[in-house]
Amino acid sequence: MRTIKLTLAYDGASFHGWQFQPNQPTIQGEVMRAVEEVTGVRTHVDASGRTDAGVHALAQVASFHTHARIPCENLVKALNRLLPQSIRILAAADVEDGFHARFQAKAKTYRYRIYRGEICLPHLWPQVHQYPYPLDVEAMRRAAALFAGEHDFTSFAATQELPEGSRVRTVYSSELVEQEQELVYTVRGSGFLHHMVRNIVGTLLEIGKGNLQPDDVPRIIEARDRSAAGPTAPAKGLWLVSVEY
Amino acid sequence: MRTIKLTLAYDGASFHGWQFQPNQPTIQGEVMRAVEEVTGVRTHVDASGRTDAGVHALAQVASFHTHARIPCENLVKALNRLLPQSIRILAAADVEDGFHARFQAKAKTYRYRIYRGEICLPHLWPQVHQYPYPLDVEAMRRAAALFAGEHDFTSFAATQELPEGSRVRTVYSSELVEQEQELVYTVRGSGFLHHMVRNIVGTLLEIGKGNLQPDDVPRIIEARDRSAAGPTAPAKGLWLVSVEY
Repeated sequence: MRTIKLTLAYDGASFHGWQFQPNQPTIQGEVMRAVEEVTGVRTHVDASGRTDAGVHALAQVASFHTHARIPCENLVKALNRLLPQSIRILAAADVEDGFHARFQAKAKTYRYRIYRGEICLPHLWPQVHQYPYPLDVEAMRRAAALFAGEHDFTSFAATQELPEGSRVRTVYSSELVEQEQELVYTVRGSGFLHHMVRNIVGTLLEIGKGNLQPDDVPRIIEARDRSAAGPTAPAKGLWLVSVEY
Repeated sequence: MRTIKLTLAYDGASFHGWQFQPNQPTIQGEVMRAVEEVTGVRTHVDASGRTDAGVHALAQVASFHTHARIPCENLVKALNRLLPQSIRILAAADVEDGFHARFQAKAKTYRYRIYRGEICLPHLWPQVHQYPYPLDVEAMRRAAALFAGEHDFTSFAATQELPEGSRVRTVYSSELVEQEQELVYTVRGSGFLHHMVRNIVGTLLEIGKGNLQPDDVPRIIEARDRSAAGPTAPAKGLWLVSVEY
């Protein structure tokens, strides 16, 4: 039995998220269909984590087990021939038996793109969240840095989820930079709760609008209460950049 | 009566080309619907030229007549609110009575993007023609330059068209450059026959593959025979960059 690690990019706008749903286009559904066609066996393909509808990936990681003998280079080509152009396998590699894309992810990096221009060019539109109104960027930048460290992120977790286990995560870096007409928020952490990055960005936008202050961030984290933080920013500005093992 | 000049960008993948067709999404259809909603009057909106299904525009120009008194700045905002995100009005301006987007265009610039990488990222795919096989770029570059000048471009005109009038056009510049993983062909001319840019690019690709030589270009032009030139390159790599008046 081989264990295969796939690295893949996708356009989230074309799918109802990663997770398989019958009668809906999903990334997992498409990848499992292609793997089945290549290997001849229906096989579960797990990702490092689900991404929601509209969320993009530059380098998501997924894994599966197979008895198929196809070399990895040919597997990449065969899967890409079978997949829609909105999903591309970037690499495939044989990894050690115990590897699992989700359980062994050590860190992930997400990026959120806020487009500040008045008119968003058609090709850019599905890739960014457009916000053409005034923002206090300096306040947002200071606030972004305050998310770094080990915290209980309950205030930033999707309320429908609230997992049984710990909601403590470690954020290794959290930074907002201006790049031409965009504000780009990049966060690297040990793991992320459902909606956590979008809820952090929604809170940063409230700070940019002056509805909250950077100094409110520690208080919001300590509240462990979703209603203390800002709203969930739209999915389409969010990109899964990389997963580390 | 005012004459309004619109500058607009669009994602050609979302439409069956510029020209209005009943029961099909077209750029002209969408723009005319939005202009009617703003002005209250069904009005013909003409572009500098039709673009085919899949062809993108960074700055197409269109014009129409209206009695509406709405200031141009508000017109841009109102139209963008009514149009799909795949069409954006970049500017609106009052111009002299006799102005007509098509009849008075003095020059146009088109760009064609050939992506040479093996794996084309999902967001790039609708914007380029992927050709991941070997090409003699130096031969293509030399050939591209030979299209400059005043020529009868019958060999590069869509055969279903073959207009009554002259097929002589002046190409002011014709250049192929390498930009990272892309070959970018940029051509500026007095005007272009239907499919002319895509047929030039199809011919350049034949030269890149070694099926034709750069020295064949003058012969192909002189033949005034569509079958002498290469095939029509796919629409999705083509961008209307600008129109000059």
